[in-house]
Amino acid sequence: MKYNYKTEINAAGREVLVEINGEKHIPFKGINKHKPTGRKAAPPIRSCIDYPWDGDKRVGSIKEALKKAGIRDGMTISTHHHLRNGDYVANMVFDAAAELGVKNLRWFPSASFPIHAPIIKHLESGVVHHIEGSMNGPLGDFTSRGKMKGTAILRSHGGRYQAVQDGEVHIDIAVISAPCADPFGNANGLYGPAACGLLGFALADSQYADYVIVVTDNLVPFPCIPWQIQGNYVDYVVEVESIGDPTKIVSGTTQLTKSPDRLLIAEMAAKFALEAGIVKDGFSFQAGAGGTSLAFAVFLRDIMKKNNIKARFVRGGSTKYLTEMLEEGLTDYILDGQTFDLEGVRSMRENPRHQDTSPFTSYNFHGKGNFASMVDVVVLGATEVDVNFNANVVTHSDGRLLHGIGGWQNCLYGKTVILPIPLFRDRIPVIVDEVTTLVGPGELIDVIVTERGIAINPKRKDLLDAVKGTNLPIRSIEELKEEAEKICGGKPKKPKLGDKIVAAIKWVDGTVIDVVRQVLD
Amino acid sequence: MKYNYKTEINAAGREVLVEINGEKHIPFKGINKHKPTGRKAAPPIRSCIDYPWDGDKRVGSIKEALKKAGIRDGMTISTHHHLRNGDYVANMVFDAAAELGVKNLRWFPSASFPIHAPIIKHLESGVVHHIEGSMNGPLGDFTSRGKMKGTAILRSHGGRYQAVQDGEVHIDIAVISAPCADPFGNANGLYGPAACGLLGFALADSQYADYVIVVTDNLVPFPCIPWQIQGNYVDYVVEVESIGDPTKIVSGTTQLTKSPDRLLIAEMAAKFALEAGIVKDGFSFQAGAGGTSLAFAVFLRDIMKKNNIKARFVRGGSTKYLTEMLEEGLTDYILDGQTFDLEGVRSMRENPRHQDTSPFTSYNFHGKGNFASMVDVVVLGATEVDVNFNANVVTHSDGRLLHGIGGWQNCLYGKTVILPIPLFRDRIPVIVDEVTTLVGPGELIDVIVTERGIAINPKRKDLLDAVKGTNLPIRSIEELKEEAEKICGGKPKKPKLGDKIVAAIKWVDGTVIDVVRQVLD
Repeated sequence: MKYNYKTEINAAGREVLVEINGEKHIPFKGINKHKPTGRKAAPPIRSCIDYPWDGDKRVGSIKEALKKAGIRDGMTISTHHHLRNGDYVANMVFDAAAELGVKNLRWFPSASFPIHAPIIKHLESGVVHHIEGSMNGPLGDFTSRGKMKGTAILRSHGGRYQAVQDGEVHIDIAVISAPCADPFGNANGLYGPAACGLLGFALADSQYADYVIVVTDNLVPFPCIPWQIQGNYVDYVVEVESIGDPTKIVSGTTQLTKSPDRLLIAEMAAKFALEAGIVKDGFSFQAGAGGTSLAFAVFLRDIMKKNNIKARFVRGGSTKYLTEMLEEGLTDYILDGQTFDLEGVRSMRENPRHQDTSPFTSYNFHGKGNFASMVDVVVLGATEVDVNFNANVVTHSDGRLLHGIGGWQNCLYGKTVILPIPLFRDRIPVIVDEVTTLVGPGELIDVIVTERGIAINPKRKDLLDAVKGTNLPIRSIEELKEEAEKICGGKPKKPKLGDKIVAAIKWVDGTVIDVVRQVLD
Repeated sequence: MKYNYKTEINAAGREVLVEINGEKHIPFKGINKHKPTGRKAAPPIRSCIDYPWDGDKRVGSIKEALKKAGIRDGMTISTHHHLRNGDYVANMVFDAAAELGVKNLRWFPSASFPIHAPIIKHLESGVVHHIEGSMNGPLGDFTSRGKMKGTAILRSHGGRYQAVQDGEVHIDIAVISAPCADPFGNANGLYGPAACGLLGFALADSQYADYVIVVTDNLVPFPCIPWQIQGNYVDYVVEVESIGDPTKIVSGTTQLTKSPDRLLIAEMAAKFALEAGIVKDGFSFQAGAGGTSLAFAVFLRDIMKKNNIKARFVRGGSTKYLTEMLEEGLTDYILDGQTFDLEGVRSMRENPRHQDTSPFTSYNFHGKGNFASMVDVVVLGATEVDVNFNANVVTHSDGRLLHGIGGWQNCLYGKTVILPIPLFRDRIPVIVDEVTTLVGPGELIDVIVTERGIAINPKRKDLLDAVKGTNLPIRSIEELKEEAEKICGGKPKKPKLGDKIVAAIKWVDGTVIDVVRQVLD
């Protein structure tokens, strides 16, 4: 089969689509080169006349709410992923849409998870035309194999806010799963059986969608406080028996990595941050909930205690390790974008210094600044890194699209970006000549920490100078790559890819940085 | 002098302007008759590229910030009034504009106070063309005398949000006085010498203005938490020595009325609410900070204690009387729009059940509902009420425009609206044949409580039935009017008015409900 794509070579040298699912898109122009014009998306003006004066917006079912919101073929339906792999709501929404006989929907989740595998049948039957949003697991695999009718578009958390704010993606109906809500639609993620902490990923949806449906299994009398989602943006409230499986929403406890290699990498990354002069009173850091990132935070905590250093703020995904730091006085604040364990939820509920944030505050590149560029040191993962420090987080070396971008691209704007990664995984080198999919340009990636040495981006002369004379094992990235290849017996095999483009990857400014092609078996 | 006004008779029978300061406006069509069309105002899309990566948006002075924001002739500059009669910032802004030689500005404050009298010189010199916003005191008097070049427009708090949201008023530059702020522009009213509680009146300004300037005398390191105003909306931050006079921002203590008549009225209003069956477990009420309203709240508290009744929420303006009720467990929540004393500020700082609100949540009539219509009983003041229960809050019987609308119009949507008013003031009857200025249609006003009896709007048969057989002194409004005239020796004198229209009064939906004419001496 031949494909008649409209493509261009972008500033990163990647051939990308300039038309996706019939809509025009701009190729990546380079870091900080694309400036938006025009005005933000403007939702319709409503009137209180059309809403119940007593504030009770409840309707009987998701299906009824979708009908009242005027669901029809080709619409865009959004959901959020704070319930992660425990979410029941997205499946209910598309089952209801199928029952209503609607076709060709665009599903615009902030991310999807293995629990959403049932939506494959709606992709096959034509209820859902394509997914724009991160796809973790089976939906990514389905897409990788070229089975989705439309082309997926993957965006970072900030890029998703930007796309909605800028009117690039118009949400017809937003469905917001709410662990706690009142009949007016005020909602939060702090209370109830499905408590997940915060609801920031649904903020853009609430602000910009034509219709907003809140779905809850824990209705409280008005006012639901705090109102992380404001009822004044909400059209309908639906009560269901359960919005999700608590055991898959947040962990009871968070596991640190037990791998000696990963622990070594994490410890080296923390040491690097200290030796480079980054870890000092009033500094800030961001570390995610992956095993190595968590271990980094734990090593950093020891360093801070030993050196009597206090952070001004720490960015979550929060876990008990961060909340302990807050409670021990090692940081003034946690600025949290996503809560990963029960301790995180408890802390956010009880501690006013544990502040919920949103992609608007933290990551939106088309705002008047955001928090990401103010963070002193950021620790992130990657599936691949190349010798130019370019990195990949969405595909594996075999070409399969199995991960979302999350806040990863947005965090690259941190003052120092460290990727602590193993030199190889399953005997496949992680440092390569060229990344399979370009997600983060090397220009923004400063340090690679592996179990066999640390490579500093030559652009960061200041960092090279700062660690000169320390006993940190500084090496060139080429040396690390060669060592990985020696151990693994050569470079990774090239994936077998078809001509079909299955997904486009956006940069934080809405331009297309790369595409993903179908994987052939 | 002849005026060539374009006017129409609106649904309330008032002759109103359909063109004001060169812009078209819609005449009042009746309660809940005007439905808006179109989309919300859309601010320009910005990019992080144009903001400091380290989040430090400070510039040297208000003048410099205004220049950077591109101030020029004819622009609209907004301020808020949380600092009330202690505000230094608005005067600084227009002094700076005058120094920059700018002319014909529209000043769009949420309200102005006697402290802003120095702006009269800028109105006289042409720096400011006209004021749109409540005018308490000297600026109102100046306007009443026909001295302002343009025509004033008065809006309720909700109407101001609506006008900005709907694009009726485009704010070029918003200046936000912040008792506490960080260099990124996050701000709150909770901390610092000028602490005023919350900053909700500036919300629309931050969201919709082209440029937003935060002015503070209490800069804290990022992050300033809570961020009642979000730095992601802010362009520049200016540090000044003092933004206001603390003694005039909030009271140290709040004074109850000592007038025996007012106390009687307040007590009767509270009794009425009980006897009518409104005061019951889970109910809600709103009472302002005026002496009689405060006294109402105090009498209600006694009633609630005696009858073991707990409110679900109480709407502020908060004072120590409301915060005591919260702390005594007489209400689950305070939903606060404006903090009137130091106890209110302390409570909001410390108690998560003392929730700040904004005109968006509480009053915006062009939202998906708002809080005002969910309140069971609302107690409000008035300068005049007529036999059709129409009420006036902006002008006196002599025609002078001396008060703003505040949230008054918005609160008329409460389930039961009570106006506790004296039968006469300075021997001038308060109940009249026809109000001088129509601000609130009688259709929405349910009960008038005076020291000589209670009049219930005949439309509220349910209330008439509910209090039948009680010993409340229920009378007709005509009877009350006649009694007032008997005591005062006749009807109030008609004010001497000129042909010039000095102000237009908006209804909550953006239509023009009445105009105010020049007062002749």
